[in-house]
Amino acid sequence: MSGTLRSALVVGTGLMGTSVALALRAQGVQVTLADRDPQTAQLAAALGAGTLHERGAPPVELAILAVPPSAVAPVLRRLHDAQAATAYTDLASTKGVAQRAVQAAGRAADFVGGHPLAGRERSGPGAARADLFTARPWVLTPSPASAEHVLERVLTLTRLCAADPVIMDPDTHDRAVALVSHAPQVVASLVGARLADASADAVRLAGQGVRDVTRIAASDPDLWTEILRTNAAAVADVLATVAADLDRVVAALRSAADAGADGTALDPVVAALRAGNVGRARLPGKHGRPPAPTTGVPVLVPDAPGELARLFGDVGEAGINIEDMSIEHSPGQPVGLVELAVRPERAEELVAELRSRGWAVHWG
Amino acid sequence: MSGTLRSALVVGTGLMGTSVALALRAQGVQVTLADRDPQTAQLAAALGAGTLHERGAPPVELAILAVPPSAVAPVLRRLHDAQAATAYTDLASTKGVAQRAVQAAGRAADFVGGHPLAGRERSGPGAARADLFTARPWVLTPSPASAEHVLERVLTLTRLCAADPVIMDPDTHDRAVALVSHAPQVVASLVGARLADASADAVRLAGQGVRDVTRIAASDPDLWTEILRTNAAAVADVLATVAADLDRVVAALRSAADAGADGTALDPVVAALRAGNVGRARLPGKHGRPPAPTTGVPVLVPDAPGELARLFGDVGEAGINIEDMSIEHSPGQPVGLVELAVRPERAEELVAELRSRGWAVHWG
Repeated sequence: MSGTLRSALVVGTGLMGTSVALALRAQGVQVTLADRDPQTAQLAAALGAGTLHERGAPPVELAILAVPPSAVAPVLRRLHDAQAATAYTDLASTKGVAQRAVQAAGRAADFVGGHPLAGRERSGPGAARADLFTARPWVLTPSPASAEHVLERVLTLTRLCAADPVIMDPDTHDRAVALVSHAPQVVASLVGARLADASADAVRLAGQGVRDVTRIAASDPDLWTEILRTNAAAVADVLATVAADLDRVVAALRSAADAGADGTALDPVVAALRAGNVGRARLPGKHGRPPAPTTGVPVLVPDAPGELARLFGDVGEAGINIEDMSIEHSPGQPVGLVELAVRPERAEELVAELRSRGWAVHWG
Repeated sequence: MSGTLRSALVVGTGLMGTSVALALRAQGVQVTLADRDPQTAQLAAALGAGTLHERGAPPVELAILAVPPSAVAPVLRRLHDAQAATAYTDLASTKGVAQRAVQAAGRAADFVGGHPLAGRERSGPGAARADLFTARPWVLTPSPASAEHVLERVLTLTRLCAADPVIMDPDTHDRAVALVSHAPQVVASLVGARLADASADAVRLAGQGVRDVTRIAASDPDLWTEILRTNAAAVADVLATVAADLDRVVAALRSAADAGADGTALDPVVAALRAGNVGRARLPGKHGRPPAPTTGVPVLVPDAPGELARLFGDVGEAGINIEDMSIEHSPGQPVGLVELAVRPERAEELVAELRSRGWAVHWG
């Protein structure tokens, strides 16, 4: 798989389309841009994602449809009729509905569906990043009707975006994302919805746990309705299993609340908590791989301009690479806590270096 | 409320008890420590949290029970019998069960229950922090039987820990934490449990959304079983409502999946997603207040020792305070993306300063 890609058309210049365009431009691909909102396409072009697509231009090597799932088949038909490209792919979050529509329209030969598993909380071309797909899975769903050279061209696309291609059939993909993305979204929204009518006193007691559980409850309802509409059966199957588990937990809690309940009443709850541990531990780290082990070194830092610089100056002189960091700072407190994440084998050395330079390190 | 506290006994030197002890020591309070595991108490003492409690010592002004809810009443009885203190409080996550047991034992006069809403993912005295409670709510549940001077002393405790005291009755507290903490924990565990039997391919497609939803599914099942046991009815009530909402969503998805479904089939799902937006927006920020507005300035930083130092040196010279930051770094990539969060009004200035020093800033 050492194909090249010389020209591409990106249709739909939101976050995903513009990020693909930026990644391709960075690899020297000639990119043209189209969006049903001309201003959005112009912004993407101004950001360096390519030039505006012109009607009647010669066919590009690959057209990338960054449009909602239900728009894939109609947009593909229009592009086909205009002979806009010699191969086509899409980036939509569900694959079955679009694939069936494309096949029903007899346009499956030069189309291979795709879904890069990447995103950001922000949307629109302004949030796009050339490295959005780096080391992220990118599912491709070739059909028996797909021509070999089309699959190759789409694989080249994933390589140019530095993504990890994963070949799946559309329905397997849709069941997988129902489980790891769509059902969790619905559950987060339902937990969030419980807070809508809560008393101010109750909301005031919320901590980091419920904030994390409900972070994605802030997502765009229209976008998610479209996703759920095109994956309704698979999401319903996952949620029905969650509902059955939930019923068992509620029944166990009710019997534990009865006076005279014996010690085993909560056994189904214990089992659910343990299964949660097991499932959670299977999730890959930030970039699709198990998280690299790091050790956090907490350092107290005065809350003043220049203090972080002094800290990082000292860390830099010590020659120790920082893998990640976080700043905790309580309002009104004159100091913040900076946690420096380093490879475990470097932690002791970092602690000694920082202490020798007068930093207050909160360590063993 | 300008009381002082001269002496305190902390019983249970895990994360919470040791953090209280450290906060009190920092304010000059004389602190003694006890734990059923002597090594744990010794470690807390070595960390500067106080000295080991000695049998037969004169009564302290306040004993703080940092033990599980079901242990509060028996430990209180033992301390009472030993005349260990002249006032008592606890830190347990649920309040009703302990309060009823204390009242039934006729020991409510010098006891005011408490629950500081604070925690960390790590546990044990080594994870303790004197500032754990800063600006966090700390619920107090005085009963009609509580003596005035005991409530005053416990209020002094919350002030010395820089927490925000909130007075509630025990059952209102328990219903509130069922909603904002205990039910979300169970739901996160159930979503996590769904991943236990998932295919490796499905798990590979997991992104940040499901990671956030299930982060607390990694919590200790024994600890949570104890919490849920002492708040079973309130948690069951919240979860039963979530289950009813879930049933409605599953039914709507099933009918939307039917061929020939009309456009309104998903209306209950849209309503749930919107209610999720509303509820989520009510959550306070990191320190119990609405999040302070910041703007993220993304900067590309070569992945090499010293580069962060150079960046923060330049930021420091610019005299702009950094409110928070994050590092995104894709494996194998020679650069990482550092996002510097600053007050919105300083963002443009920071961008100009960094660009003038040669940094690649990914900014509109």
